[in-house]
Amino acid sequence: MVQYQVLDRTFSALADPTRREILSRLGEGPASISELAKPFGISLTGLKKHVQILEEAKLVTTEKIGRVRECRIGPEQLTDAVQWIEVYRRHWERRLDGLEAYLEAKKGEQK
Amino acid sequence: MVQYQVLDRTFSALADPTRREILSRLGEGPASISELAKPFGISLTGLKKHVQILEEAKLVTTEKIGRVRECRIGPEQLTDAVQWIEVYRRHWERRLDGLEAYLEAKKGEQK
Repeated sequence: MVQYQVLDRTFSALADPTRREILSRLGEGPASISELAKPFGISLTGLKKHVQILEEAKLVTTEKIGRVRECRIGPEQLTDAVQWIEVYRRHWERRLDGLEAYLEAKKGEQK
Repeated sequence: MVQYQVLDRTFSALADPTRREILSRLGEGPASISELAKPFGISLTGLKKHVQILEEAKLVTTEKIGRVRECRIGPEQLTDAVQWIEVYRRHWERRLDGLEAYLEAKKGEQK
């Protein structure tokens, strides 16, 4: 059940364009809250809320350095999300391969 | 913006354990609503709602065959989700490689 809750939080956090943009930006390197807020044109309060959701999902870590809160990506949970999708995709691709083989066989029969 | 909305819907749909289980089940092959409902021990109405959310996210397609609604997986949108995560991961891994090289260099200096 723990694994379930982790994935719930991960996917919920990713279900917002601003939060995905924040992750992309942090993929280039650490940034402060105000540095992150600039390109989005949203308030610091609004941005902090998004960062908090990403932090709860462990997709981001933050650290107070002097008067500035520095944000970094924390990739562990995204690996779980990718793993879940990949297992699902493999199932699906196997089924697709089966379907392809079936259609090829059908085509052969018709010749 | 369209791409954004698609990913919003995909990740929202994945942010629920029952919906992820439904996708895993459909990965093994098509199933009717009542076949899907059985292992979860939830009502048909509850299950239909989950299927509807998955259908809106295009992760599932349904078709009425006689009196039964058959559900199948529709993988297109999951590919977008994986692509998004993969781009982000590549950025991150590149940064990690850089960090590793830096730490190796530091270690070399200390010898």
